[in-house]
Amino acid sequence: MVVVAVDAMGGDLGPRAVVGGCVMALDANPALKISLHGDEAVLAPMLAKQRGGSGAAAKRLQVVHAPAAVSMQDKPSHVMRHGRDTSMWSAIAALKAGEAAAAVSCGNTGALMAVSMLQLRRMEGVSRPAIACLWPSRGRHGFSTMLDAGADVKADAPDLLAYAIMGATYFRNDFDEPRPRVGLLNVGTEEHKGRAGLREAHELIARHEETGRYDYVGFVEGSDLPSERVDVIVTDGFTGNVALKTGEGTARLIGEFLAETFRSGWVSMLGGLLARRALTRLSRRIDPRRVNGGVFLGLNGTVVKSHGSADATGVAAAVGLAAKLAGSGYRGRMAERLVIAAQAAQDAPEGDEA
Amino acid sequence: MVVVAVDAMGGDLGPRAVVGGCVMALDANPALKISLHGDEAVLAPMLAKQRGGSGAAAKRLQVVHAPAAVSMQDKPSHVMRHGRDTSMWSAIAALKAGEAAAAVSCGNTGALMAVSMLQLRRMEGVSRPAIACLWPSRGRHGFSTMLDAGADVKADAPDLLAYAIMGATYFRNDFDEPRPRVGLLNVGTEEHKGRAGLREAHELIARHEETGRYDYVGFVEGSDLPSERVDVIVTDGFTGNVALKTGEGTARLIGEFLAETFRSGWVSMLGGLLARRALTRLSRRIDPRRVNGGVFLGLNGTVVKSHGSADATGVAAAVGLAAKLAGSGYRGRMAERLVIAAQAAQDAPEGDEA
Repeated sequence: MVVVAVDAMGGDLGPRAVVGGCVMALDANPALKISLHGDEAVLAPMLAKQRGGSGAAAKRLQVVHAPAAVSMQDKPSHVMRHGRDTSMWSAIAALKAGEAAAAVSCGNTGALMAVSMLQLRRMEGVSRPAIACLWPSRGRHGFSTMLDAGADVKADAPDLLAYAIMGATYFRNDFDEPRPRVGLLNVGTEEHKGRAGLREAHELIARHEETGRYDYVGFVEGSDLPSERVDVIVTDGFTGNVALKTGEGTARLIGEFLAETFRSGWVSMLGGLLARRALTRLSRRIDPRRVNGGVFLGLNGTVVKSHGSADATGVAAAVGLAAKLAGSGYRGRMAERLVIAAQAAQDAPEGDEA
Repeated sequence: MVVVAVDAMGGDLGPRAVVGGCVMALDANPALKISLHGDEAVLAPMLAKQRGGSGAAAKRLQVVHAPAAVSMQDKPSHVMRHGRDTSMWSAIAALKAGEAAAAVSCGNTGALMAVSMLQLRRMEGVSRPAIACLWPSRGRHGFSTMLDAGADVKADAPDLLAYAIMGATYFRNDFDEPRPRVGLLNVGTEEHKGRAGLREAHELIARHEETGRYDYVGFVEGSDLPSERVDVIVTDGFTGNVALKTGEGTARLIGEFLAETFRSGWVSMLGGLLARRALTRLSRRIDPRRVNGGVFLGLNGTVVKSHGSADATGVAAAVGLAAKLAGSGYRGRMAERLVIAAQAAQDAPEGDEA
């Protein structure tokens, strides 16, 4: 059995979507247990309805009462100081205490990262933890990983090296790929392009191919995020967050245009009906909910950030991902690579990796 | 008649795509003349074929010989020093000399910006010119404008204010929109989010709503690029370039997935055939070639950068855009707004806009 701690009170759609997602995840995985953190007065009636219905799975769910909730407007610093009674804090505390093997929240990303860093602490060799997300791609495994998707708006060259190492370990774990290909996001693939700090990171990441057990393909561009050139895309959290949301927004726009296309006349409607099964497969293929969940890398614990607007399907995907990661032992292998890199930086006579 | 100077030698597909695009643009607009800059020995046989065929329009095209060409690998600084015999330099020189009203190139973006800045000079009140691009959107005009799409990897607060003013004037000119809505790209819409420099720009842009004749909607996210919230999205050229290429890459990936969908079985194929007209309309709607052409804003002259991989259709769109802009007088109105803003910055007692 694996226990996942879930923050019930985050998310734009409220606790009902989270409860629904938890029940879906429990149905899908008989070896899963959930501790659900939030206001018992709100959660109990929702769960009673689930337990009364088909929800035998819901018996593997236990509520942990936390009276307060973090809002999307709360500043991370405020939550760090005054947030001990929140459901988010409680979920991470369960992880820290060893009562859960992973934690999931749909709430305020900045606050979740701050609370996680405070309680779980960073792994050795990591100064800025990162959020890794999966990106549908033409690559050999159907997905690429991008990090940082928004944990920190800044990243210097040693941070980007740590992202390369963490991203490669994560991708290797997820897709059984012995040598993930790492690329550094830039505005062009030529060596002289981009900001000065990026050229320093370029050399550092190239030098650590063996430490990180990856193949470095050099600079990549935004158009390479879904391409077959690269498995792991490294960037700072500002650029990564803009790229992630731009890609999601573009996919949603095209999805809406496509739906309009098949309502634009009866011949097209008939065409849409005939192709319905294939179109459903397509929409699943590009559905951001399927790959819902940014994973916090670089902490002493597995935390998955679900999309704020995630519905029950999205929450279930995030909980499933957390359970899978908790059982995989990827963090031990990641720690090992990071320690080797930190050691190399200390030993380097130039001291340029410190 | 309006004359557009076209650099024949840039572009991934070579001069044949450029020549084809010029002929298409001439066919579409009887008031257009083109001066085509490049190697006469290469261009003459291509044009002879066009003139021999149906190409009466090609008689409004004149070749200006330039022996050398800028490659995609050339550094901008190298081209500035040694590039006087290139087709790119020659096209911009024609614009500077008043022999053309606008210039178009598919070549090296950095070199084109450097050569344009050197010859045309910046407008008063502009320290970093920007590239503006159009983005298909759900907005009231079907498009939003984003800048900077990649002219300069850096932009400070006064640069971002200039982008807001230039972008609003450009959008107003293109779509007859009296008060374009301007947004500043960030990783969240809350006031406290993002980098410190962005919060300064946020206040500056808000303060200049009347100078720039726009409505400022505040911070926007990557997902807002195609949304109905905003008409003009302001960002630095690093972030803007990554967003642009990510959006294009995502649209291309989904287009390919869609094509596969309609090859995935005979029922789906039949469906695709029935919906073919509607699907063609859809692919035109999301075709980046239709809106091909980034416009350089902030220079004393109209320069359009066509996509490096543009085919004849894409080149024709860029030439058409250049001709339309040249006749619109938008630069005079933009200069006026920028001078008012520069004046306000000088008069400001705090000096925080200098």
